[in-house]
Amino acid sequence: MTIGIVGLGLMGGSLGLALKELPDVAHIVGYDHNPTHRRDALQLGLVDEIGEWEAIRRCDVIYLAIPVEGIIAALKQLTDIDESTTIIDLGSTKARIVQNVPPAIRKNFVAAHPMTGTEKFGPKAALEGLYEGKIVVLCDLEQSGALQAERARRLFEAIGMRVVTMGAREHDRHAAYISHLPHAISYALANAVMAQEDARSILILAAGGFRDMSRLAKSSPVMWEDIFKQNREYLLEAMDRFEEELKTCRKLVEEGEWQKLHEWMAEGQKLHTIFKEN
Amino acid sequence: MTIGIVGLGLMGGSLGLALKELPDVAHIVGYDHNPTHRRDALQLGLVDEIGEWEAIRRCDVIYLAIPVEGIIAALKQLTDIDESTTIIDLGSTKARIVQNVPPAIRKNFVAAHPMTGTEKFGPKAALEGLYEGKIVVLCDLEQSGALQAERARRLFEAIGMRVVTMGAREHDRHAAYISHLPHAISYALANAVMAQEDARSILILAAGGFRDMSRLAKSSPVMWEDIFKQNREYLLEAMDRFEEELKTCRKLVEEGEWQKLHEWMAEGQKLHTIFKEN
Repeated sequence: MTIGIVGLGLMGGSLGLALKELPDVAHIVGYDHNPTHRRDALQLGLVDEIGEWEAIRRCDVIYLAIPVEGIIAALKQLTDIDESTTIIDLGSTKARIVQNVPPAIRKNFVAAHPMTGTEKFGPKAALEGLYEGKIVVLCDLEQSGALQAERARRLFEAIGMRVVTMGAREHDRHAAYISHLPHAISYALANAVMAQEDARSILILAAGGFRDMSRLAKSSPVMWEDIFKQNREYLLEAMDRFEEELKTCRKLVEEGEWQKLHEWMAEGQKLHTIFKEN
Repeated sequence: MTIGIVGLGLMGGSLGLALKELPDVAHIVGYDHNPTHRRDALQLGLVDEIGEWEAIRRCDVIYLAIPVEGIIAALKQLTDIDESTTIIDLGSTKARIVQNVPPAIRKNFVAAHPMTGTEKFGPKAALEGLYEGKIVVLCDLEQSGALQAERARRLFEAIGMRVVTMGAREHDRHAAYISHLPHAISYALANAVMAQEDARSILILAAGGFRDMSRLAKSSPVMWEDIFKQNREYLLEAMDRFEEELKTCRKLVEEGEWQKLHEWMAEGQKLHTIFKEN
């Protein structure tokens, strides 16, 4: 099987590292619009070859590991692929993408979101094992061809992922809570501290808790501006829900309702019993 | 030198593990009002002996690793200690404590806040190396006796900590941003998700980012209710500052001001260049 990977950053690059271990993957062609990324990806052995669009188009499986708008544009370039070709995107939001797949290649297409990553980006951030043991969400899978759905599922499982299926809109709403809202919060926390005159002296005290909470604010603004744009409505809904909770907390602290504050904290703590059960 | 540790949870227990490695520490007496904690601490070897208040009082150095109100109460029990005794508290807020030290033992007392911990609690959560390489803040040190200040500093350095000094009020304001606000945020995020009907299905998608952001919400409500109470004013100030930032973000998303959103994210990202320099 030949694989094409468009976008050789953290996600695409790590995917190259994972796929090249599979016995039935014969050759991996990579493409990135950034010449430095192309060179780095080849030097780091993330792909076997850097190819042009023509080489990508001939691959059996094509992964699109680029931002959402790039995915929509790329799909328009791929309408003349072979009937058996599988295109899998790794975009962080799904509804806008599935709405924009050209009907001619709808069966070729599988919408996927691997729930993994780090705050780093670019080919040098690529990691072995990034996908292993993680969840991948496949969306609106009934609209993909049987061959393509099966192939996508098998490839994700082969690199150690657990497949979950759901509708694209449901995915986007879930992702707003689980990923996009936490990013907004992390950037807001970082900005609240940076706005202090004595930010440096405050940051000297930062231990593990603050570092964890602010880690997501290291993420690429280019990428996250795009994701916030794609998932605007669900993100706003999740932000409103979060703000309500924070206001509840603020009110309890202001009014000295310590018993109620305790109960509110204990309610949040329950989340971790669900984590344990999963 | 003999050491007394009052409170044998995560902080006190880990301190026992660290101190017993020091050549000039001859004996460590522990006390905890919880009988299970006393038994666990002894079985785990966190202290050499469980003693009553009388045994603690005779130690050369007494650590108070209990909540703030407990520290204030304990200090009242310790007014008849020897002139050379050092009492070191590890409370998370400092202004209320230093205001309430009985004048007779003010020189014996050193106010300390080690910037370390985990979300776990109790003697079984005690860890070797919890203090190593971390910051400890000593507050209003000019009010402590020279012998006591020096002894406290030396002991923290001996277990691998870096000492920073500042005023108690300055510490509390800094701690609100770096520790207490992040806890409020983490509980609010956990509650926002738990309030969703499909919380379980949302949580299946949780990857490293969400887990990091919600980890602090595992913390003990008993302990954090107390800390929020102690640092109420600075916490409210920090929460307001954070909410302003979140509102800025919400407005930029709602109005589709993507370039400005990008700049706002990039501003938060700068925090990590300061981390690198520290």
